Amino acid sequence: MACRASFMGAASGSRALSTMGGGVVVKNASHLPCWSLALAGPTALLRRRHRAPSAPRCFAQSVGRRRAKLTAEAYPELRRDERFGRLTGEDVAFFKDLLGSASVVEAEADIEPFNEDWMHKYRGQCTLVLRPASTDHVSRILSYCNDRLLAVVPQGGNTGLVGGSVPVFDEIVISMARMNRVHSFDDASGCLVVDAGCILDDADAYLAARGHVFPLDLGAKGSCHVGGNVSTNAGGLRFLRYGSLHGSVLGLEAVLPDGTVLDDLSMLRKNNTGYDLKQLFIGAEGSIGIITKLAVNCPQRPAAVNVAFLGLASYRDAQRAFRQAKVHLSEILSAFELMDARSQELVHAVRRDEKRPLEGEHPFYCLVETSGSNGEHDYAKLDTFLEHVMSEEIVADGVVAQDATQIKSLWAWRESVPECIGHWGGVYKYDVSIPLPDMYAIVDDVKARLTEAGLLGDTDQHPALGVVGYGHMGDCNLHLNVAVRRYDKRVEQALEPFVYEWIEKRKGSISAEHGLGLAKKKFIKYSRNDTMVALMQQIKHLYDPNGIMNPYKYV
Amino acid sequence: MACRASFMGAASGSRALSTMGGGVVVKNASHLPCWSLALAGPTALLRRRHRAPSAPRCFAQSVGRRRAKLTAEAYPELRRDERFGRLTGEDVAFFKDLLGSASVVEAEADIEPFNEDWMHKYRGQCTLVLRPASTDHVSRILSYCNDRLLAVVPQGGNTGLVGGSVPVFDEIVISMARMNRVHSFDDASGCLVVDAGCILDDADAYLAARGHVFPLDLGAKGSCHVGGNVSTNAGGLRFLRYGSLHGSVLGLEAVLPDGTVLDDLSMLRKNNTGYDLKQLFIGAEGSIGIITKLAVNCPQRPAAVNVAFLGLASYRDAQRAFRQAKVHLSEILSAFELMDARSQELVHAVRRDEKRPLEGEHPFYCLVETSGSNGEHDYAKLDTFLEHVMSEEIVADGVVAQDATQIKSLWAWRESVPECIGHWGGVYKYDVSIPLPDMYAIVDDVKARLTEAGLLGDTDQHPALGVVGYGHMGDCNLHLNVAVRRYDKRVEQALEPFVYEWIEKRKGSISAEHGLGLAKKKFIKYSRNDTMVALMQQIKHLYDPNGIMNPYKYV
Repeated sequence: MACRASFMGAASGSRALSTMGGGVVVKNASHLPCWSLALAGPTALLRRRHRAPSAPRCFAQSVGRRRAKLTAEAYPELRRDERFGRLTGEDVAFFKDLLGSASVVEAEADIEPFNEDWMHKYRGQCTLVLRPASTDHVSRILSYCNDRLLAVVPQGGNTGLVGGSVPVFDEIVISMARMNRVHSFDDASGCLVVDAGCILDDADAYLAARGHVFPLDLGAKGSCHVGGNVSTNAGGLRFLRYGSLHGSVLGLEAVLPDGTVLDDLSMLRKNNTGYDLKQLFIGAEGSIGIITKLAVNCPQRPAAVNVAFLGLASYRDAQRAFRQAKVHLSEILSAFELMDARSQELVHAVRRDEKRPLEGEHPFYCLVETSGSNGEHDYAKLDTFLEHVMSEEIVADGVVAQDATQIKSLWAWRESVPECIGHWGGVYKYDVSIPLPDMYAIVDDVKARLTEAGLLGDTDQHPALGVVGYGHMGDCNLHLNVAVRRYDKRVEQALEPFVYEWIEKRKGSISAEHGLGLAKKKFIKYSRNDTMVALMQQIKHLYDPNGIMNPYKYV
Repeated sequence: MACRASFMGAASGSRALSTMGGGVVVKNASHLPCWSLALAGPTALLRRRHRAPSAPRCFAQSVGRRRAKLTAEAYPELRRDERFGRLTGEDVAFFKDLLGSASVVEAEADIEPFNEDWMHKYRGQCTLVLRPASTDHVSRILSYCNDRLLAVVPQGGNTGLVGGSVPVFDEIVISMARMNRVHSFDDASGCLVVDAGCILDDADAYLAARGHVFPLDLGAKGSCHVGGNVSTNAGGLRFLRYGSLHGSVLGLEAVLPDGTVLDDLSMLRKNNTGYDLKQLFIGAEGSIGIITKLAVNCPQRPAAVNVAFLGLASYRDAQRAFRQAKVHLSEILSAFELMDARSQELVHAVRRDEKRPLEGEHPFYCLVETSGSNGEHDYAKLDTFLEHVMSEEIVADGVVAQDATQIKSLWAWRESVPECIGHWGGVYKYDVSIPLPDMYAIVDDVKARLTEAGLLGDTDQHPALGVVGYGHMGDCNLHLNVAVRRYDKRVEQALEPFVYEWIEKRKGSISAEHGLGLAKKKFIKYSRNDTMVALMQQIKHLYDPNGIMNPYKYV
């Protein structure tokens, strides 16, 4: 209660709104601005610089191991489809003639990064990487591969989490990295036309210089390609504000497996002339064609960003706080993130030198972000929201970032969760959507299940050390993670299919934003009925009758 | 300049922001609040009460005529597809058995409203209307019709503009009006689950009582069905703020022509488990199935709405004003509507008793609307915007609505354009998207073309009396309308294919938000290349191999 009182006092008391830049410190119980003890450590820049080398290890990787197990060994039930052709010297000569030798990668060492995902969880056996520079290149490559029945894997930044962008056997990788130009930007309408291989961060930097923002933001933005983002229908951190890519993508150009160029690169916000075929490619994970260009509707860049970090007594309070954030922050609410106590304990255990945002410990934490055109207005709204949730005893304690550095540091307590919880060995990761009222209950149920089986505990005898829940509460999107000391078959058996059945019962989704890839292909039935799966397979067959596109994955 | 000075003075001067409710009068050159002379006439309520009887006549309808020409006569090149079965007594008995006699409409007088569109432009020859009450009903009807090769037309509120919802020959009408229930609403996530036959206004009223808003608003909201809105991918008045239905629709249930129920009624904001098949049904105009239920993401209802009405010297200034509106109003900008001088002259000629919003005459007018959660903040932003555009001489004069009545009255000057310009006989209507820099040029070019041909002028000898451009500038969506005194083949010949070719050259769309229906089926090639059309026909054939769904239309 002392915390709450001091928080409230500061929130409604002595601050001068007129001095606002990015936010104001709200003192906690110690009566010291908590930021004076420094949060702006090395993790502050984590998000912007996220690249494969700094990635967390997954449970599938032994400590110290540098390469992933071959996917073919990890999934022994998979067999190479012998309908597919085997690469010949003639094939390679054709590709060299088309692309030039420098864009045909054959050396094993050079191929390695294309064969393995950044988590070192999946490793394929590809022996050829092609680097097209134009839509025409992509079209000729696919047409040739389709005729020769050579299987292919389109690859963007290779930052996926479900093994969708790496080969399983000897599929040819088509890397989109050379197709990375911005073609045009219309300042009035906000329409950006860009190659699929453009890195998200580069596209956003281009827009930032022009007062606009890419309507998508995620941890891997320094590596991922916009084409990959659209192919996997990435959700990310600003989904709450800018919505789905199904709404933001105005047009796209894609190449079908037979080499046909689907030119749907409309730059118009409204275009009701027939079926919206481009929508099928958004989230198709490269299974029916390769996206080569995009036209994206980009909003005005927010002039002001504010972030508050709250401590709450229960998940019910977190829901109440979210409801109030919608009322008070409405059009400027850009993120509402949930983290449970265990997730923050584990982050703290790794980042011992960093002072935690709040002094006391709380069962739940929420990070609330606003993005708007007027910092003073936004802060006033945030202030009203905070006063309301404090006076109604919805929130127990909280802090508001004072500047951009503090905003990044607060975000780091949310964004470093996936890295930190892998510190002790590995993590079982589930990216799920669950209707809000039930969303957190799955964490308690998994915890109880593992405890009962004697698998979760504080000693080294227990393979699992923590079950944590965090994620994008504003989107009903939970990341359920089980931190383990080592791989243990019993943990996996306790988790699956339990987790999927649990989600099926609540009409949730087994993949909220990560996609199906290889990892979740076989679990789709928990989120889609037989009719839906059959209709999806019909679409796959329609566009890719030879099945050469990204085989062994998706539907 | 006097106007501008007085406008600026009022905008930055004596108003007390603390008294704000919905807005403040900005005085014009006469130094009288223009609203004191009353704008709140009967048209103020026009939008909310828009129904077929008050609709404008189209050129195709002679003055005084009550019924449309038979579509089969107006389009003599169309022939009934004789593959389709003819209705028998046995069929009718089947449907009566399934639905009950009261839901099988056979009497000619009762069928009339289902056979004709509200503009009296299209008239079919249907002899049977079915009114299913459940998804199971729809499934059994379609399955039966598919087996018997009986062609059908799904019909919602029948408020379309392109003849998509009325039969051409003897197709059976399936009216969705009985399926009009709200199934659920989740206050926390904002997800509404509703029957397709629910009237948009009813759905929005339900949401209003719960602090939320339907993410779509349009003139026909009192009659149109949400299922029809989604089937035609309606754009409407708040597109700028809430975006496309491709982003707002979370899930849907649809019945395929063979009776298969596609259950994609996800209530989750994120669900990446396979192809997003529901997207194909958004904008499919009933050509591959019938939408029966929807799950829609509904935002928090704005607490405050402000409207400004501006006079501008050129289209270039209108573009500059829009650019500034994006900068200053950003997240609260909910509409930016353009009207040219001629459109307002014609509205004024019909509504002589109503005082025009601005005293002087201007080549262009813009209506700017903000919707936000805090009226005081919103008004301050609007104020800054207005001061900026006045001081930069982007805007010549302007007025801001003072209350809800005045907001409606200002909107009436925009929304009554389509009705008023039909006053003298009829209108040729084109709903098009054009990249913003070129958008208005089509009006000048059409004007020049008709003038040169001696078809446009002030005397009764000229068939055309006005070429007007207005529309949703924020969405690059222009309504190009040609007001005529009478039908004249020469006007049509001067307009088509000229208009379509003009749009094709600028990479625009021949249908921005109205769809293809019967009216634009044959013009799709101006907006889509042969490959795209062929891929669309492939989808049509995949889902509706017998072609029974809404034949003779779309692709």
